[in-house]
Parts: sequence; structure tokens; C-alpha cells
Amino acid sequence: MKVGILGAGQLGRMLAIAGYPLEMSFSFYDTSGSPSVGFGDILVDKGGSGAKLEEFLNKVDVVTYEFEHLPLELTQKIEKLKPLYPSSKSIEVCQNRAKEKALFTELGIPTAEYRVATSAEELAEAAAELGCPVVAKSVTEGYDGKGQAVLRDVADAEQAWSSINHDAVIVESFINFSRELSIIAARSTTGEVAFYPLAENNHHDGILRYSIAPAPKVSTELQQQAESHIKALINDLDHVGILTLELFETPEGLIANEMAPRVHNSGHWSIEGAASSQFENHLRAIAGLPLGNTAANKPTCMINIIAEKGDKEAILKLPYAHLHLYGKEERTGRKLGHVTVQADSYEELVWRVKNVATFLPGSPEFISSIS
Amino acid sequence: MKVGILGAGQLGRMLAIAGYPLEMSFSFYDTSGSPSVGFGDILVDKGGSGAKLEEFLNKVDVVTYEFEHLPLELTQKIEKLKPLYPSSKSIEVCQNRAKEKALFTELGIPTAEYRVATSAEELAEAAAELGCPVVAKSVTEGYDGKGQAVLRDVADAEQAWSSINHDAVIVESFINFSRELSIIAARSTTGEVAFYPLAENNHHDGILRYSIAPAPKVSTELQQQAESHIKALINDLDHVGILTLELFETPEGLIANEMAPRVHNSGHWSIEGAASSQFENHLRAIAGLPLGNTAANKPTCMINIIAEKGDKEAILKLPYAHLHLYGKEERTGRKLGHVTVQADSYEELVWRVKNVATFLPGSPEFISSIS
Repeated sequence: MKVGILGAGQLGRMLAIAGYPLEMSFSFYDTSGSPSVGFGDILVDKGGSGAKLEEFLNKVDVVTYEFEHLPLELTQKIEKLKPLYPSSKSIEVCQNRAKEKALFTELGIPTAEYRVATSAEELAEAAAELGCPVVAKSVTEGYDGKGQAVLRDVADAEQAWSSINHDAVIVESFINFSRELSIIAARSTTGEVAFYPLAENNHHDGILRYSIAPAPKVSTELQQQAESHIKALINDLDHVGILTLELFETPEGLIANEMAPRVHNSGHWSIEGAASSQFENHLRAIAGLPLGNTAANKPTCMINIIAEKGDKEAILKLPYAHLHLYGKEERTGRKLGHVTVQADSYEELVWRVKNVATFLPGSPEFISSIS
Repeated sequence: MKVGILGAGQLGRMLAIAGYPLEMSFSFYDTSGSPSVGFGDILVDKGGSGAKLEEFLNKVDVVTYEFEHLPLELTQKIEKLKPLYPSSKSIEVCQNRAKEKALFTELGIPTAEYRVATSAEELAEAAAELGCPVVAKSVTEGYDGKGQAVLRDVADAEQAWSSINHDAVIVESFINFSRELSIIAARSTTGEVAFYPLAENNHHDGILRYSIAPAPKVSTELQQQAESHIKALINDLDHVGILTLELFETPEGLIANEMAPRVHNSGHWSIEGAASSQFENHLRAIAGLPLGNTAANKPTCMINIIAEKGDKEAILKLPYAHLHLYGKEERTGRKLGHVTVQADSYEELVWRVKNVATFLPGSPEFISSIS
């Protein structure tokens, strides 16, 4: 199968690495002008003029993507010519926080109370109704903590509106949560669905720093609750491929935060931590192949390498660590790679993660808070 | 690091897949005219005229290979321009059974009694001296059981000589062995050496059918004996990269059969079965990076997919199997891929391997004999 990927970054890279042993080949369509994937057939169409789109589509049997913030017209155009998985319906909902929240509500999935505001005045009204503090987020195009503002007081509305600088924002009540979790599911063209165990995610400055999977202290009921939520979504969207649902754990149960219609940073642990990684299962799903085993083989932690690559040789010396670099130059806030750490117990895992963190100058202060 | 690989088959393919996460890139130099690697930068120079050699060498920092039956003049020429790992010294010894046996003997590594013969008459003399049955093998260019003949009687010499059709043959006494084993070691440019656990190998018609690693029923002493033999070889050759030593287990201890200066089919189990695979460690070694953890994480069996691909979907459904296909067309005797099977015990492993074998029409009769 010839797979076309919209985007040419680390997610596309890890998809291709997982797909070669299944005799798939990969073409990448890059509009950034700086693809980092480093191999495969890369078509660069800087700015997305569409000049190379036909050539790209002619090369592939099926199209998928590593980034959902794609122009809908583009994905709908592609869909007329080649199968696009997940479909533009998944993209449309996942790239729009208002549509996403509406779907959560429609399917009975708990989410934060929210309002949509299209002006500074409406934002102030929404903040007053919901009760500050609230968080305002651009309805579209926000990711990795971008396009967001916290309102501690209704009077912050004017400044928040102009800092977000968008047509519409979603305004949400604060959730009193104990931790952030995510669940990843795969759904095949045949309708088969498989779930990974919940991962526990730790962010700083809006960027994921590390994930532990399976998340410690997860009851069977909690896992089932998460599976039930994502199953409702994945079936409703007739979604094909990986779907990721970010959740908050609260005393009242799980509250849905947002979802992504693609392989996700909180699933990178599965490369070593599960028999079939999220990347392999995404490809199996879009190819209509049976889904692979999603069970975790050991307590696993994925640590992002951000901004600086750190002491690569020291990490390579550790018998329990796997290094994945993405072929990208160092830059503030940039995800450059990740390290997977495994252990037989969570206690040992924490010690090992703390040790790895000493070799990563970008983020040890956050990681060393792991307990 | 830009790695150049001489050859563009499955070994080069698995090296590249292991090397991308270490930010290496790969160029392949193919003289067969039918590269199967399927990705990376492939320079085809059918027949090996050398027309594309300079272009290939200009693209890379270091050169390695997936096949040791290379013209020595070529490898010596390359060596003058770029680092070649393992060096032409390793190639020279490993591609010549007479030089290989002489080195085993020089280093005190037990091997079958042997003679070199350069005519049918000398072959008959050698067979008489050693006592039939003996096996005659072409001194160079033989692999996967090709260029070999068994002499049950001295009178078979004429026919054996013409069937092998070579300038010189090596004639060996039969070894009364209980099983075939192999040990794989990595040695870095820094001199660091690491050993994988012994694998048990099962051949049919001269082709490896399956390997179990760690080989069951291996004492610490046996593993140490194997490590001591390969350590003597790898250091004497000043070898950089993976070296594989095939051994026979006999009541008198290990007897060396032959070696290969490269990643080896009997080490494919390490992709899932060890923290760092033979492919990753070969690359770490030639890059001078610290070597990775070679310990087996579970009893593991690697089953070759030969001639026919079998029931791919049935294999993908098995939660304990990993499928690796090489992007090659079906053909008699051809290695098309492998399946890695893991289990917590050897007993369970055998059941699982037998189950996988039912989906592989090419070789179930051999695999089902596993016990």
C-alpha cells in the first residue's frame, strides 16, 4: 500500500518507520518548506499553493495526516480523489473546539461548562456567567498551549480577547482535576476497535513533558469509562485510524478536554511499551488489516526532549532507555525527540526517569517533580 | 551521520529502520539491479561497473555492507576514501573459508578438521585422509548452502568437484553435533564489545528456518565459551560493527563453523527481543556511540518467511507475533520476511511458533518439528 501523509514531521516519520515492515511505502506532502522527516518521498509545496498536490495524490493509494489543522477545502478536495483516513468529518470536529464540545455533549461525555464568544463583550459576559477564573481558547488553530488566555476576573476580557486575536473563542470553567489522562483508540475500515491503556500526561507551559503508561492507579472502571467515551466518539465520527481523547480525572469521574484525530505524543510510549505501537495500528486501521495488540508490556514512561538534545551519549548508555530523535535543529520550545524508559515497577520507573532527566537540560525541573 | 550501505536488501532495510531514530541517513549502493530496500537514497549500478561509486561515496560519511561476498579490490578502494566498517580485513577472512579456518586455528578456537583442495584429485586425497563422509565447500562465494557437496565415499570426489565448479574447495570432517548455535557480538570504534545471548538455529536445505534466543538449555559456561571465542576473533580482526559466529554444540564443547562480518539472520529476534537490536548496535558501533543493552527480554523465536508470504492477516491477528516483510516478490527459496514470536516460557513459545507455522505454507513441516 502506498500511503500519502499530509505533513512531514516526526509523526509522519514514526508512521513510516512502523509501516515499512508491513511493506507500505510513504510519500509526504509538506507545506512548511522545512520537512524534517528525513527519508521517504517528500513533495514540498511551500505555502500550500497546491502546485504539487496532484503529483502527490497520483503517487498514493490512501491519504492520512499528522496534523489536523488543515484547510477543510483541501481535505474535502482530496477526499474526492483518494480515500482520506480519518475523514474530513473527523478533521472538521477536532479542529474546532466548539464543534468538539457540542459532540461531547451530544454523546453524553462530560466536559467543562462552556460558552462561545465572538467579541470581547461576549467574552466578558461568558466569564461573568461561568464565574472566574475561566480559560478562553481560540475556537480553531490552537495547539500546544497557543491561542489561550486565563481570565482571573471579568475585567481581563478585553486583554484576553486581543491577545488571542481570533474570530471566536470558547470560554470554559476551570476544572478541579487531580491529573491529566489520555486514551488512544484505533478503528479500522472494517469497524474493528482497539484501545490502549490510559496514559498519565504532564504538561508545562502547554507542552507535554512526559507520559506514563499505563497510568498508575487506574481502576478497571476508570479504564472502561475512558473506553466507553472514546468508543462513542470514534463510532459516531465513523473515524478510521487513531483517535486520541484527552481527559481530566476529577472526583466526579473523567471530564473530556479535547481530542486529536491522529497519532499523539501521549502514545509514543507504545513503540517499545506495546506489541503494536499507535503508529503501526494507525496504518493497520487505514489499510483494513487486523488491529495489533495494544496491551502494555511494562510500566513505561515517555519523556519529551524539548529545545535542547541533551547528553545523547549518556542516554544511549542506559540499558533501560530508548532514544528517538526526530532530525530537527534545536530551538526554544521545539520537540526534538523523546526517550522511552521501562521498568518492572512504577517505583523503579520513577528512579530511572529522574536519572534520564539529569541528561536533558530542557526540562529536568518539571520531570524531577515526578513522584 | 550519513551511512552508506553496500547492498540494498532486507539487512540494509532493517539497518535504516533502526538508524533513523538516531538521526542517521542512508544511501544504498546496489549492483544487483533489483534493490528491494524500498526507501532511502538508492544508487543502482547494475553489474557493479563502478559508474555510480564516486557519487555514492560523496554522499556518505561512513560505509558498511549487508553482504561480505564483495570484490576485495572494491572494498580496498572504498577504504582509501571513506571509513569502511567492518574493514576489508574482516571481509577478506570471512569471505574465504580457508583463511577463516586458519584464523580459528591460530586463535585456538576449535573447528572441524579440514584440508584445502584445488583439484578433483586433491579432493579425493583429502577425503581419504579425513575419512568419509566429508563435506566439500567452495573456498569463496558460498552461502545459504550453495557451492557445497557431501562425499559419502572417496569415489564421489570427481562428481563433487564438478558440481561445486570452483578453483578451490575446503574439505571438512563431519561434526557430530547436537545442535547449531550462533553468537553475535558488536565492537565499537572505541573498542567497546557487547555480546548477545546464544541463539539456536534450525536449517533446512541450507537455509535458516528459525532461531530461538536465548537458546534454551545454555549454561553460563557455554555462553562464556562462545563469548570468549568471538571476543578473540573480533579483537584480532580489529573488527568494527556486528560479527556473527556460527557454532556446533558437541559433547566436547563448541566447534566453530563459520562467521559473517555483518548483521545476521540469526539475530533478527533482537528487534523485539532485546532493548537494542543487532541493527541498532551495528550502527552505534560504526558511529562510535555507546553500545546498547543486548540482554534478551523474553524467550523469543524468529521464523523466516520463505518462498511464500503465507496468511498475513492471520499472523497480524496474533497478539504475540510481529511481522516483518521485506518488500520482495515470492520466489522459491527466497527470504521474504520473518515473524518474531515471544512468550514468557519456552513451553508456551513452542506452542505459539507451531501456531504461526500453520499460516506459513513455505516451511511448516520443518517448523512443526520444533520441540
